[in-house]
Amino acid sequence: MQDQLYLRIPGPTPVPPRVLRALAQPMVGHRDPLMDERVARITARLKPLFGTQGKVFLLAGSGTLAMETLLVNLTAPGDEVLVVTNGNFGERFAAIARDHKRNVHTLSFPPGVPTDPEAFRGALAAHPNLRAVIVTHCETSTSLLNPVRELAAIVREVRPEALVLVDGVSSIAGVEMAMDAWGIDGVATGSQKALMSPPGLAIVALGPRALEAMRAVDGPRFYADLRRYEDSLAKNTTPFTPAVSLLFALDEALNLIEEEGYEGVFARHRLMRDMTRAGIRALGLPLLVEDDAYASPTVTAVDVEALGPKRVLATLREHFSVVFASGQGNLTPRIVRIGHMGYVSPSDVLHYLAAFEVTLELLGHPVRRGAAVAAAAEVYTAWATASSSPTR
Amino acid sequence: MQDQLYLRIPGPTPVPPRVLRALAQPMVGHRDPLMDERVARITARLKPLFGTQGKVFLLAGSGTLAMETLLVNLTAPGDEVLVVTNGNFGERFAAIARDHKRNVHTLSFPPGVPTDPEAFRGALAAHPNLRAVIVTHCETSTSLLNPVRELAAIVREVRPEALVLVDGVSSIAGVEMAMDAWGIDGVATGSQKALMSPPGLAIVALGPRALEAMRAVDGPRFYADLRRYEDSLAKNTTPFTPAVSLLFALDEALNLIEEEGYEGVFARHRLMRDMTRAGIRALGLPLLVEDDAYASPTVTAVDVEALGPKRVLATLREHFSVVFASGQGNLTPRIVRIGHMGYVSPSDVLHYLAAFEVTLELLGHPVRRGAAVAAAAEVYTAWATASSSPTR
Repeated sequence: MQDQLYLRIPGPTPVPPRVLRALAQPMVGHRDPLMDERVARITARLKPLFGTQGKVFLLAGSGTLAMETLLVNLTAPGDEVLVVTNGNFGERFAAIARDHKRNVHTLSFPPGVPTDPEAFRGALAAHPNLRAVIVTHCETSTSLLNPVRELAAIVREVRPEALVLVDGVSSIAGVEMAMDAWGIDGVATGSQKALMSPPGLAIVALGPRALEAMRAVDGPRFYADLRRYEDSLAKNTTPFTPAVSLLFALDEALNLIEEEGYEGVFARHRLMRDMTRAGIRALGLPLLVEDDAYASPTVTAVDVEALGPKRVLATLREHFSVVFASGQGNLTPRIVRIGHMGYVSPSDVLHYLAAFEVTLELLGHPVRRGAAVAAAAEVYTAWATASSSPTR
Repeated sequence: MQDQLYLRIPGPTPVPPRVLRALAQPMVGHRDPLMDERVARITARLKPLFGTQGKVFLLAGSGTLAMETLLVNLTAPGDEVLVVTNGNFGERFAAIARDHKRNVHTLSFPPGVPTDPEAFRGALAAHPNLRAVIVTHCETSTSLLNPVRELAAIVREVRPEALVLVDGVSSIAGVEMAMDAWGIDGVATGSQKALMSPPGLAIVALGPRALEAMRAVDGPRFYADLRRYEDSLAKNTTPFTPAVSLLFALDEALNLIEEEGYEGVFARHRLMRDMTRAGIRALGLPLLVEDDAYASPTVTAVDVEALGPKRVLATLREHFSVVFASGQGNLTPRIVRIGHMGYVSPSDVLHYLAAFEVTLELLGHPVRRGAAVAAAAEVYTAWATASSSPTR
């Protein structure tokens, strides 16, 4: 039954029924006053999720376009940039920068290993002419959460003139971000992760310093030229036809987020991470990100090399319609990734842990029945006892 | 009543109920076999609408991204290109090429005036090193349809080595296109015009010559790099997260188009154009495109300078919930534009002509009541008598 696939991948994520209904509203013209109101309302309501008093730009496109848009608007060909890579998406940002003829330095860490602040400080010290420093907040390919607040503080101290740009594709709206307070200049995200909307919106937030820089950068760009978007945004519109239906969806998804409250949303994501990690540990499987302090609240990578990720994914889907994601690149034969962001709840975590546990038993992995749920229950009940209200 | 706006603008166009329902299907993963099937089915079914045995690429983005994608994949910085401009969208293509540092020559015609073949031949003769020639099929800002078949034949004769690239944003699926047969190498379009889907899909078709050229072009591009899309398409997928819901929609819209039949779809658009032009003439208003041979089947621009376009649009909307589009740029104080493409029928034409006629009377324009509908009726009945089946 195709309609009963439990999508637990790190994006696109399940779209709530209210958002699906919003998506299917009749079309309106993109220059219609009804759209102007909506663009104004959406961009105003996205700002707190980025933590900026700057501007938020909406482009029709995917998260990769948002990353490229940050790069081509805030650096020029030949500029020196430092890209920190902890996995595939960091490497993608470096590839984007190389394709656009930036002078790219990289600082790389193995999968699951967070950016080391001292090594980072050293890389900044080694390159005095950096125009921008690029960091991935949640590295979706490994489920690592980089300490972007701490890293941005180091840039502000060592290279105060460099811009700090962050890939926030799988973190924004699931994890706290405070661009202005933390000294982060630009963040890219997409609609299809913790924002609970279908894919197809590239979202870029620029703080005050980045806005000024963007206006001055000379370099080829047209569709991604944020100067055009800034001019249009002053009239609450977009320079090119926006993805109207996806804006209908995002507007409704923001209603859901505001009804729950930002703090409630972030707490729910942390809780889902903690329940998931406790459950996986109880199953005796290694977590790719060992240190809890750097585990993303939105996705969890589990080492199932001994069982074979392909068999795990296929069995879980065949028996229980639960869909986890495979690994990427070198990690493909080693891990599966569990997405727990957006329209996912602690209730869903209990469900997928239970289904995963039975799947492992079916594949011959030694399992103490009920262990994963029991461990997650311990996390949940401790949280519920301490908390004033249920999370949902 | 917002739900009863009759959207008669040249895009985004009304989305049929079946397509809206398809849009609201539950999300699936973009690397899911269910998506692979869909990508394969959609790209195969788009090919006949472009008239190519080449390849069709789907990007999350708007029509402008499709235009830019053509340019950056088929020409390199410094390359000489000739852009024919008959209005705003031709000028946009020239601006895209200039932003990307191409060596741009333009051949310009006043609003509503088609490209003159002899002047075009002269421009080709004057520039022996052209890498590409860019022409707008339907110039949405003026409702002109350029004779792209004839123009492409001239390029093939005078500059056989140049690529012919066409902006087909408001023509594809409303007007016949036969890329391979006519010697056209690349066409860009969007989902939100005659394809009856919401905006947010940029669609690019390349013929065999263009595919070869694209693979060899060196120049900065990442999100728009069709080499990546070609590699992914071989596995029926996309390099970056596609706009999944919009692909659901497009797949269903293609069902509707195939049920009607391509020839039926194109004939319906020509009929709507002819009915509209007859009705407008009966109202005593000038058409911006005077020559019927160059009038687009998808949109009609009407000169209402004497009445004031703003008043016309506001009155039509206030009294009858019918939404026409304003002009763009210099044409803003002069014209309104009527979109009749995609999910629009001869029945709808009778409706908007009737409403437009009453609107003109309300604004003091001398009107013989019923004249517009009478003129359209003459066109329709002649067509219905000659035709074997009703168009709908």
